[in-house]
Amino acid sequence: MKCLLVVAHGSRRAESNEEIKRLTEKVALLCADQFDRVECAYLELADPLIPDAIQSLADRGATSVLVVPYFLARGAHVASDIPEQVAIAQASVPSVEVTVSDYFGAATEVPALIVQIANAAHGGAGQ
Amino acid sequence: MKCLLVVAHGSRRAESNEEIKRLTEKVALLCADQFDRVECAYLELADPLIPDAIQSLADRGATSVLVVPYFLARGAHVASDIPEQVAIAQASVPSVEVTVSDYFGAATEVPALIVQIANAAHGGAGQ
Repeated sequence: MKCLLVVAHGSRRAESNEEIKRLTEKVALLCADQFDRVECAYLELADPLIPDAIQSLADRGATSVLVVPYFLARGAHVASDIPEQVAIAQASVPSVEVTVSDYFGAATEVPALIVQIANAAHGGAGQ
Repeated sequence: MKCLLVVAHGSRRAESNEEIKRLTEKVALLCADQFDRVECAYLELADPLIPDAIQSLADRGATSVLVVPYFLARGAHVASDIPEQVAIAQASVPSVEVTVSDYFGAATEVPALIVQIANAAHGGAGQ
């Protein structure tokens, strides 16, 4: 059972965490043929935390978990904290293949997406 | 003179702020025909801050500044802090049309981009 885990920072604001859940539902719909299960987890401040989410997927039969860090910059969270939490999880479920993708902000499509947002706002302002 | 200002959170890590500068340079290349000047600013922790950046653009002849919040979720930064800083800036340069676009994470393309990142990692892992 192949699983995808979208990992966000986590917020004290429930709305922000809910936004990640809704985003994850959209992701799940888009890749239902590649991943059997798509869920989200948080680095801190919200549940489930990364190790708990991976353990839960393992308990439900995950054979692999691909973690996608939904972060914009290669800060300490991406460089150290997420790998650390993933390693903790991996140690408790050694038979599950846990990997971490590149972080979201590193995608080459990001600059073009910013331009698109700018153009939409620009057009919307009636220029 | 139409300007685009990419606003990121700002980090204590110089590398993260540099990453935003490099991203902004890529954005500038992509929309050179729509915006005369494309720069970045930070909400906190790094220079230039939003009001300083907008003032600087105004000093150099900006007639409009479109602020694009490079944030993933509609948290307090997007909902309150950025509009507040933009309002402060606007008050000091009333003749410049300062507007704020939707935040980055709201773009409808985001879920598909996450799937793309996941597929790239998945393929790379030799599924």
